[in-house]
Amino acid sequence: MARLLRSATWELFPWRGYCSQKAKGELCRDFVEALKAVVGGSHVSTAAVVREQHGRDESVHRCEPPDAVVWPQNVEQVSRLAALCYRQGVPIIPFGTGTGLEGGVCAVQGGVCVNLTHMDRILELNQEDFSVVVEPGVTRKALNAHLRDSGLWFPTQARTPLSVAWRPPGRRGPTRSATAPCGTTCSTWRWCCPTGGCCTRRAEAGISAWYSPCVSLGRRKSAAGYNLTGLFVGSEGTLGLITATTLRLHPAPEATVAATCAFPSVQAAVDSTVHILQAAVPVARIEFLDEVMMDACNRYSKLNCLVAPTLFLEFHGSQQALEEQLQRTEEIVQQNGASDFSWAKEAEERSRLWTARHNAWYAALATRPGCKGYSTDVCVPISRLPEIVVQTKEDLNASGLTGSIVGHVGDGNFHCILLVNPDDAEELGRVKAFAEQLGRRALALHGTCTGEHGIGMGKRQLLQEEVGAVGVETMRQLKAVLDPQGLMNPGKVL
Amino acid sequence: MARLLRSATWELFPWRGYCSQKAKGELCRDFVEALKAVVGGSHVSTAAVVREQHGRDESVHRCEPPDAVVWPQNVEQVSRLAALCYRQGVPIIPFGTGTGLEGGVCAVQGGVCVNLTHMDRILELNQEDFSVVVEPGVTRKALNAHLRDSGLWFPTQARTPLSVAWRPPGRRGPTRSATAPCGTTCSTWRWCCPTGGCCTRRAEAGISAWYSPCVSLGRRKSAAGYNLTGLFVGSEGTLGLITATTLRLHPAPEATVAATCAFPSVQAAVDSTVHILQAAVPVARIEFLDEVMMDACNRYSKLNCLVAPTLFLEFHGSQQALEEQLQRTEEIVQQNGASDFSWAKEAEERSRLWTARHNAWYAALATRPGCKGYSTDVCVPISRLPEIVVQTKEDLNASGLTGSIVGHVGDGNFHCILLVNPDDAEELGRVKAFAEQLGRRALALHGTCTGEHGIGMGKRQLLQEEVGAVGVETMRQLKAVLDPQGLMNPGKVL
Repeated sequence: MARLLRSATWELFPWRGYCSQKAKGELCRDFVEALKAVVGGSHVSTAAVVREQHGRDESVHRCEPPDAVVWPQNVEQVSRLAALCYRQGVPIIPFGTGTGLEGGVCAVQGGVCVNLTHMDRILELNQEDFSVVVEPGVTRKALNAHLRDSGLWFPTQARTPLSVAWRPPGRRGPTRSATAPCGTTCSTWRWCCPTGGCCTRRAEAGISAWYSPCVSLGRRKSAAGYNLTGLFVGSEGTLGLITATTLRLHPAPEATVAATCAFPSVQAAVDSTVHILQAAVPVARIEFLDEVMMDACNRYSKLNCLVAPTLFLEFHGSQQALEEQLQRTEEIVQQNGASDFSWAKEAEERSRLWTARHNAWYAALATRPGCKGYSTDVCVPISRLPEIVVQTKEDLNASGLTGSIVGHVGDGNFHCILLVNPDDAEELGRVKAFAEQLGRRALALHGTCTGEHGIGMGKRQLLQEEVGAVGVETMRQLKAVLDPQGLMNPGKVL
Repeated sequence: MARLLRSATWELFPWRGYCSQKAKGELCRDFVEALKAVVGGSHVSTAAVVREQHGRDESVHRCEPPDAVVWPQNVEQVSRLAALCYRQGVPIIPFGTGTGLEGGVCAVQGGVCVNLTHMDRILELNQEDFSVVVEPGVTRKALNAHLRDSGLWFPTQARTPLSVAWRPPGRRGPTRSATAPCGTTCSTWRWCCPTGGCCTRRAEAGISAWYSPCVSLGRRKSAAGYNLTGLFVGSEGTLGLITATTLRLHPAPEATVAATCAFPSVQAAVDSTVHILQAAVPVARIEFLDEVMMDACNRYSKLNCLVAPTLFLEFHGSQQALEEQLQRTEEIVQQNGASDFSWAKEAEERSRLWTARHNAWYAALATRPGCKGYSTDVCVPISRLPEIVVQTKEDLNASGLTGSIVGHVGDGNFHCILLVNPDDAEELGRVKAFAEQLGRRALALHGTCTGEHGIGMGKRQLLQEEVGAVGVETMRQLKAVLDPQGLMNPGKVL
C-alpha cells in the first residue's frame, strides 16, 4: 500500500488524506484488513507484481498500479467491498482479464482493483426462453462449452444483455434489475474476454451493482421507465461494478461455412460487402483485412492466402440455405473482381481461418518483436469506409509508422493496428497524433472515434469533439447521480 | 386559455401563478401571441374542440385538454417553443397521432401540446448505409412509400433509432446527437403512428430536442461515452421532444409469405413458437390471437378462419429459402396438433390477413359498440406465456369482463383487450383491478408490466413494484438532470 501513504497526494485524493491523519500505515493496514474481512485473506493482494499486472491492459498506456487487488467470490462480497470503499472515499477499478485497449484499468488515482474473474458461475440457463444469467467472469468460450448440448449458443458477434443488476450508491433499500430492449447487435468480442469484463465497454454485455446488487431477471422486452441497462452498458466501469448479466442465446446453427476471398482494392471489398447486405444474404460475419494484415496472418497463423485486401465471411443455416448463400455471395464477389474465393465446411478448417482472424492482433505484434500495439477504433457510415481506409494508409506511409488494418466491414468499424516502441517517446507521439487525426477524420465523415473499444483514458478529448461540451457535461451530471463521489474508475470516459 | 386563468391552481403550477400576477387574460394573451410569433398564427389553437382532441388518446383515460396546441414546422421552431415554455414554467406535452394507450398525452397540469405531425419530411436517405433520417411526423407507411424504388424498407417490426438529436435544457451551446448501438429489436408498430410519436414509448424510434436540437447523424455503432439515445427512447416525452430520428433500413425481401394456423390450445400455439425459434427458422413475424379475438377478426375483417387459438406468421426471403421455411414450420405446427395451416404468397391475400391482425383492436371494439377499449401489455419469459394466458382467461371469466387476447408470442408480450363502458364507474373499476392483477402476475413470473405501451399515467404504481423505490428514485434524479423544472410531460412515468 505504498501509494496509500504518499501524503503529497492527499489533497487531490481525500481518501489518502484520511489515511494520512492516522499513524502512517496503520489505517492502511486497517483498510487492507477490512478488505480481507470481506473476501478472505487469500483474496487480497498488495504485492507489487500483482498490482503491476492489474495496472495495465494490452495497450500502450503506462502502467498505473492500484493500491490493492481483491477477488470477490460473489455478489454479496462485491456489495460489501463497494460499501467499504465508498465509506472511505477509495476509488474502485473493475477488472476483467485486462485485455482492454484504452487504458480502462489504469488506477490513475490509485484505489482498489476489483478482479471479477473468480465470479465465473453460470447462474441460470433458461433454454426455452433463450436466455442465460452469468456472472461477469464467465468467458464466451466457457459459456459455449456449457451450452454445448443445449442446441443453443452465444455467438461471437456480441449482443447487449437483456438485463443487468444495478444499484445507485448511498442507498440501502432493495435493488432491482434494469432491462434493455433485447438483442442489440454490438461488436465483436475479444475472444478471451469474460462476459462481464468486456461489457463495461460498449462491446458487450453487462452491468454492475452497488452495495447490494441482485441477480438480474430474465425479462426480454420492457417499456417500463427509463432504459437503465442501456445507460450502464458501455460506461466502462465508471457507474458501477458488473455482478450478473442476462444474455440472449441463439439456436446453434445447423451448419456453418467459412469463406475467404481476395480483392484488387479496398473499394472492391467494401462494395462487395454492401452488395451482399443489399441482397439480404444473411451473412453471419464479414471481416476485412488489408494486405499488410494478410501478410502478417499468413506468417503468424501459417495460412497460405493471397497477400491482398481480403474478406473473411461466415454463413450459418441449413445445408440448403448455405448452398444458396454461398452461390449468391460468390456471384457478388466475382462481379467485384475477387479472386481466390474459397470456403470450408469442416470445423477444423473453419476454425483455422477464424482463429487466424482472431489472432490478427498478435500476428501484427509478431511483425515487430518487442514493440507494443495501439489499435485505433473509428467507425464511419459504410459508404465512407473505402475513402477513410485509403486515406489512413496514405497517412501511415506519410508518418513512417508500421500499421495494418482489420475491419468489421459490415458496420463501418475498422482498426488500424500500429506498432510502437514504448520507450521511443518520439514514435509514441507520432502514434498518438496519427490516432487523433484518424479520429477527427471519422468525426468529419459523420462517424465516431470509437466503435467498440471505448473512450478509456486516451480519447476523452475526442469524446468532447464528438458529443460536444454539452454532451460531456450531461454525461458528467448523469454520472453524478449514480456515483456522487466520483469513485468509480476515475479518470476514464469523462 | 380558460385553464391558464384558474387561479385556484396556481400554487400547484407556478406558471399559472405567474399568469395570475398580471391582469387576467393579458399575459395569457401575451403568451399565446408569443407562441404565434414562433410558429405563425394559423399553427396555434386554443379552441375547445381542438384542445379536447389533443387531451386524450385511444385509451379509457379521461380527457385532460392542454391549454393550447401548437404545430411547429421545423426543428428551430421546436427549439424556440421549448425555450419559451421553459422560461415561463409552462408544461410541454409532445403529441404524435394520439394513438397511445396509456394516457401519455393527457395534459394533467395543462400546458402546451406540441403536435409534431407537420414535421413530416424525410431529411436524408443513405441507401448504401441502410439508413434514413426522418422528422417525427413521418409515418411508417409514408416512409415505406418513399422507399418503394430503393430496394430498402422499414419493417413493421420496429427498431430503435441509430441516433437522435437531444439537448438538455438551460444551456445554449451547440448540440450533438446521441448514438445508440444499432438495430435493437423492439416491438410492433401501431401501423398508423408517426415514427416520432411512437418512439417516445419504447415501442420505437426517437428522441427529442431541447431549444436548439440538430438533425441526427447517421452513425451506426459507437462506444463513445454513455448511451444517451437508449436513455431517451421509451422516456415517453418526459425528457424532451423528438425532432429527428435516424432509422436503420433493411433490404426489401425478395419474396414474402403469410401463413395462419389454428391450434387446439394456447399451449400448443406457444410450444410451436418455441420449436420454430429453436429450429432457427428465420420467421419475420409471429403473432398469437385467441379464439375470442379470431371470432372478432372473422366478423370485422370478413375472414373465414377457424375460431381457435391461432398463429399468424410471416416469412421473408428468397423463393427457395421460403419453401424450406414453410416446410419446416408446417412440420413443427403439425407435430403440435395444428389444423388449417394455410399460406398466401400473393400480396393481396397477405395484406388481407395482416390487415386483419392490425385491425384486431378495432375488431375487438366492434364487438361491443359504444364501449372503449383498454389494452393490457404484460410481457413474460416465453416459457411462462401459456400459464399466464390461461390464468388471464380464467380471471376474465371470474370478473365478468369482455376481453380478447393478441400476443407478440415470439417475445412473450401479449395484450388482453378489455371492453368497458366509460360511464360505468363500477365496470371501469373492475377493468383497472383486473389490469393491475395481471401486471402483478407478470412481475411474479419475472416479467414486466409493459412490453411496449409504456407506463403513461396508469402504471406508475406497477413501475415502482417492478423496478423498486430505488429504481424509481434513480429515474427521477436522471430526469432532473435533463428536465430540472419537471416541465416535460409531467405526471407520466414517474
